[in-house]
This record gives sequence, C-alpha cells and structure tokens, in this order.
Amino acid sequence: MKATECFFAVLLCAGAASSAFAQQSVPFAEGVPVAPTGLANRPLPEGPFLYPTAEQQDIRVTVFMRGLEYPYSLAFLPGGELLVTERAGRLRIIRDGVLDPKPVAGGPASVFKGKSGVLGAVHGYMSLAVHPRFDENHWIYFSYTKPLEGERMVTAVARARFEGGALTDVRDVFTGEDMYGATAIAMTPDAMLWIATSGDDAQNPKSFVGKVLRLKDDGSVPEDNPFAGNDGWRPEIYSLGHRSSLGLTVHPATHEVWLSEMGPNGGDEINIIQPGRNYGWPLVSLGRSYAGKWQAENNIPTHEGYEFPAAYWMPAISVSGVTFYTGDKLPRWNGDLFVGGLRMGEIPGTGHLERILFNENMEELRRESLLVDLRQRIRDVKQGPDGLLYVATDEEQGAILRIEAAR
Amino acid sequence: MKATECFFAVLLCAGAASSAFAQQSVPFAEGVPVAPTGLANRPLPEGPFLYPTAEQQDIRVTVFMRGLEYPYSLAFLPGGELLVTERAGRLRIIRDGVLDPKPVAGGPASVFKGKSGVLGAVHGYMSLAVHPRFDENHWIYFSYTKPLEGERMVTAVARARFEGGALTDVRDVFTGEDMYGATAIAMTPDAMLWIATSGDDAQNPKSFVGKVLRLKDDGSVPEDNPFAGNDGWRPEIYSLGHRSSLGLTVHPATHEVWLSEMGPNGGDEINIIQPGRNYGWPLVSLGRSYAGKWQAENNIPTHEGYEFPAAYWMPAISVSGVTFYTGDKLPRWNGDLFVGGLRMGEIPGTGHLERILFNENMEELRRESLLVDLRQRIRDVKQGPDGLLYVATDEEQGAILRIEAAR
Repeated sequence: MKATECFFAVLLCAGAASSAFAQQSVPFAEGVPVAPTGLANRPLPEGPFLYPTAEQQDIRVTVFMRGLEYPYSLAFLPGGELLVTERAGRLRIIRDGVLDPKPVAGGPASVFKGKSGVLGAVHGYMSLAVHPRFDENHWIYFSYTKPLEGERMVTAVARARFEGGALTDVRDVFTGEDMYGATAIAMTPDAMLWIATSGDDAQNPKSFVGKVLRLKDDGSVPEDNPFAGNDGWRPEIYSLGHRSSLGLTVHPATHEVWLSEMGPNGGDEINIIQPGRNYGWPLVSLGRSYAGKWQAENNIPTHEGYEFPAAYWMPAISVSGVTFYTGDKLPRWNGDLFVGGLRMGEIPGTGHLERILFNENMEELRRESLLVDLRQRIRDVKQGPDGLLYVATDEEQGAILRIEAAR
Repeated sequence: MKATECFFAVLLCAGAASSAFAQQSVPFAEGVPVAPTGLANRPLPEGPFLYPTAEQQDIRVTVFMRGLEYPYSLAFLPGGELLVTERAGRLRIIRDGVLDPKPVAGGPASVFKGKSGVLGAVHGYMSLAVHPRFDENHWIYFSYTKPLEGERMVTAVARARFEGGALTDVRDVFTGEDMYGATAIAMTPDAMLWIATSGDDAQNPKSFVGKVLRLKDDGSVPEDNPFAGNDGWRPEIYSLGHRSSLGLTVHPATHEVWLSEMGPNGGDEINIIQPGRNYGWPLVSLGRSYAGKWQAENNIPTHEGYEFPAAYWMPAISVSGVTFYTGDKLPRWNGDLFVGGLRMGEIPGTGHLERILFNENMEELRRESLLVDLRQRIRDVKQGPDGLLYVATDEEQGAILRIEAAR
C-alpha cells in the first residue's frame, strides 16, 4: 500500500471492490479542502451490507424500500402489509415488498413544520399502533398534529378503520389542548391505548404535557387509572415527568409499556412506565442544559423521589422508536430492546441503531451500537411477521432497512 | 456500482485508492464466513489519516512511532524528548522522532501480570509525571508495581533523576501497603505530587485504596492536606471514593487536578478533585454491576451527599489518559479536554479518543468521538511542545499517533 493520505470511512465490497471504491473516493491532497459535509449523513448506498456483531451473529442489512420522505413510524398488520407514516402527514402502505405510489386515502388533515427530533418541531402524522383485534375491527391508531382555525393546532390521536386500502370511520379518540410535540402511541394486548406526550409542563397534573396517558380503545378513561377521581388531576394521566417522548413499545412478556425519551444535553432515557409514578422532568434529569449547567434544580442531577430510568445515555444519541425483538430468525437477539438513534449529541452523521440486552429482572447487562457506518438518522424499528427487523431512516430520501442473519 | 455485498468499514485513500482497497478487502459471499475477529481491534494502517471533525477543523493523524509494546503513559520533557512507559515495566525515550532501541537504564524492578484496563491487572510501569522545575532538578516520577519477597507486591511511586539518558538516584516517594491497580500520577506547578489509586476499599480512611493522595515532591505530607491531623485518617488523603483511576491531569488555568475513573458496567467519570470530598465509590455510581443491578446501594444510583462527576459516560468507553489541549496549532480545540477510550462497553475494537468542550464554568457543552475508525485501544494523550496532540495506543503492536490540523 502506497503511503498516501487516507480518508475514513467508507464501505468495502466483495467482488467489485476497486470500482466501488474509486466511485466513493473523496479526493484529498494538500490544498484540496475536505468536503465541509464530511460529517453529515451520507446517501445510503445500494447495499446489502454485512456486519459482524458483538454476539458473533453476523447480519445482512438490505435496503428493503426507498422512496419514503422522512418516514416516522412503522406498523405491520396481521396480514403482513406494512404501514408507514411520513412526517409531512401521509400514511403509506407496502404490500409484498411494493410501495403503493399513492398515499392511503381518507386520513385527516394535519400540520407539518420543522424537523424530526428537534424540540418544537411540528409533525403531521407521527406514531402508529394497531388494535390487538385488528382482524375483527380493522382499527388502527395514529398521532398527528390537527389544524384548528387560523394558526391554532393541537396534538390528536385518531382511530380509523383500515379496509380496502383506505381509511374510513376516522375519529379523534384523543384531542389535546395544545401542541405537545413528539407523541408516541402503543396498544397493549388488553386493548388499552397508551399516548406519551412531550413538553416542559410535565409536572402539572392539569396538563396533558409530558405525560403518559392511558385510554380505552374508544378514547374513554379507564376507571382504574391511577389518578382517576383525584381532584386537580387529569384522569387520563398514567405517569408524569416525561420530556420528549419519541418511542413507545410493549414488553412481550410483562406487557409493561416502555418509553424512549430524548434528554436535553445528554440524558436520553428508557423508562418502564408504572402507574402514578413521576419520572422527574424537568426537575431532575441526567442531562445538562445546553448552556452547560445540569438540567436539574440546584445544579445536581439527583433523582431522589423520582423514577430512575431503566437505561440512559451520556452523551445523548437522540433516541427515537423502540421495539423488543421476539423472533427466532436472529436468535442471539431474542428478548433484546432495539432503540433508534437520530444522532450522537450535536454531531451530524452519527445516527445508529442501539441494541440493549437485559437480564431476567429487566436490568441492563450491556449494549451495542449497530449500523453506525451507514450514517443515517434512525427513526423507528419494528419486527416484521417474518421475524426480521425493519428500520426506518429519518431522511429526506428515507428508506426502510431489513436486518437478517447473514447465514 | 455493482450491486454486491459490502463490508463496513475501512479507509479510503486519495491517489492510490484502488490498490489500497483491494489490499484491505475482506471477501464475503454466501457461505464464506465473516472473519470472527471482525469486531476486534485491527492492525493500524500506515496512514496518515484525514478526518473532518465537528468543529469544521480537519485533522491529519500520522503514525509518529511504532514498535512500542503496550505503551501506558507519555511525558514530554522541556527539551522535547518524549518519555514512554511500557506496561511490562520499561521506560523508553524518543528523541527527534527516533525511538531509542534500548530501554532507559536504571529503573527499579517491577511486576507485570494481566491486561491493561482490566480491574485486577498488575502493571509494571504506569503513569509518568515530570517535575515543574525539571530543568534544575531533572526529576521525573512514575508509578509502578514493586515486587517484595515471595509473591508480595505493592504499588509505589518512584522519583528519579533523568540525566544522560539514564535514571539515577531512584527512590520511592510513596509505597503502598498493597497493590492498588491502576495508579495515575500528576504534578501541579506548585511541585505537589498527586497520586490516584484504585480499589473497592475507597471509603476506608485508613486505606490508600481508591483515593487521591497529595504529597510534596520528596514524598512528605503537606501540612495543609484536608485530613492531616485527623484521627483515623491517612494524612496523605486529599479525596476519597474513587474506583479505578486511569488518568490524571492538571487544568491549565485553575491548576485543579482532573481524574478519569473507569466505571463498572457504565458510569465512567471525569472528576474535578476538591479537598476532602467524597466521590462515592462504591456506595454510589452511575453504572450498573455486571450482573445488572445498579452499583449503588438500594439499587438506586443517586449521588446525594457525594460529588457528582464533571462528565460521565453511559455506556462506558473505558476511559484512560486525559489531558487539556492548550496549544494554538489546533485552535478550535484550545481549552478542550481529551480522554482516551479503551473500548465501548463490552465491544472490542471500539477504542477511540473523546473530546469534551466545557464552558467557562467547566460545565460540559458537548463532546465528540475521534479516531473511531482506527479501532485502536487509546491509552494516553498528551500535548507536545510543538503544540500537537500525541496519542498512545494500548496494543501489543503499540504506536504513538500525532494529530495536527490538515491545513
């Protein structure tokens, strides 16, 4: 190898190695500037990509679908179709590996402004959930930003019948009083609808901001909610003190709801939601304010009296969608939690997929960063009915990746 | 580009791109196994390597020196020579870019067993420090593991005159009562010697384990040490509650001593050492035990009554040597702290150099991972008299890398 200057890091392909590299080459010599976007997200190569992983399970990552604009949430239907929201306010459907070129008709109007993962951004369509008895009732749920008169808008969650490729009987089962930023939803097997909102008023018992809410599948309030009947409390509230709710999933065995929350300057969290508990935001946090002080009061990030996260990150990875893997096609990952990451702290081009391994008490044993080299913002991850993992990239030229065992 | 299978991630070189890649190619096709060492540290390529960085300051990384066996600590002398310890118990010297093939003569015998960065490992020679008036007295200091009769050994810190390329007048200025694992040392401009030890008995005021000690340059105890004269306390103790002390450096303006501590399963820390303070180990920690429970008592990692770290990591990066950059050759990094990382959590091949930017109150603003693609364990980082950064890799085929601005 000639002693020359080398520029990290690209991909190496078997077979067509030389030509692939020549194409991907970034010329650099004294006086020739490095591309100023050198650290930014890069266009997704054609793939597939092969990776060794920490559990000695080699994986193949295929670009399953392109042509999606900032996909936000993935949801598989029992029949195998894959629903995808796009943040601009569209619902798309993929059948047998083919993306329907037309968005699903019948959805509500929505408002979109800003950028995914940024606090204060306004998303059109967001998180998807499928009713556990979809085969009978064909109900799906999705969070979205609902336009009102003038410039007003609110966060809402709609229920709709998805049948014949279109939405019908659309109605809001939850309507907020304001815009709550990222709003993640999930359904448990008991047909309860869980809604996780975002915002700094997370300690206010009269506000829907920064809460996990629990509703029946028609939007009514379950009588056994922890604050139901308490004066001064919204009866919908199940837990409080959440900052920026990016992902919500259901543990396959316990049916507990797990929430991913983006922290401030550090302090991303995974929380296991328990009834009536306070998760601390904005009073306590393991992150700093952007000016440097610890987020928490008196500049000490203690969590006395508040729930400590099940997992946290410092520095932040800008957590997004989460899911447990329960299949047998990637057997070394069975039971592990997968967490999307939009980027590492302030550094562009550092999105990845994180895997967390827990013991039988749901205590973290270790974690692993996956797909780092692809430099894509990862927005959601779900398991398909084929037992493989599907990953949505939060990019203008968005894609869905499929992860399988390499052999 | 042919649709083929791609294997991440290697390096891309200008000029000799094709031949470089062809050589680095890892063949992969259905049925051909991925190298089982795919995630392990890789041989260090010839370089130099060019990187963009988050502050839009492009850097060139040169392999300054090879042929060192697990270098542990770097120390520049005022005349520009670079001293390097090797963990097996050797002191090496580099003059004008040339490594003296013979170790520096005159050093004490030492014990070496195990592996760097692993708790319980025994290192021969470890951390280096240079007296602030070296030009007058030629004193250097180094921590090492001293053999006693039979299998016994203790941690010690020796002072020696370094003159004419050899050590003379060697004497122990500190001798422990046992082996304290990783032991980092530093000298402040007031000629105080700081010794940071490791171990679980870190709360015991009669033990040297898990403490930062402060001594005069001859090994005697300063009268103004915080516990001097306190019954039941070792007068050498300056602070307590430290776990695994891998690096120690002096802030260029405040002259405070900053310590890097490797956490358990997560919870690596940077601590600013204040007199008489308790940093919590093993009672509190932001990390988990390896079995999954939080390290701290009652399974809640709160830090009430203990010093909270200035910076911490979750997951762990296995912090090692630390230094502040104060030069003008890499101007966007002036004032930043650089921290070596041996690996990310349990994952081999993930060593890197981390940069932390602080505000004027020494509160963290953000951080950046550097040299990730090289997949080397990074053991120490120091600034040279030329204003460049020098980085030692903790590898059997160990090297020193030099970081300069790319233009």
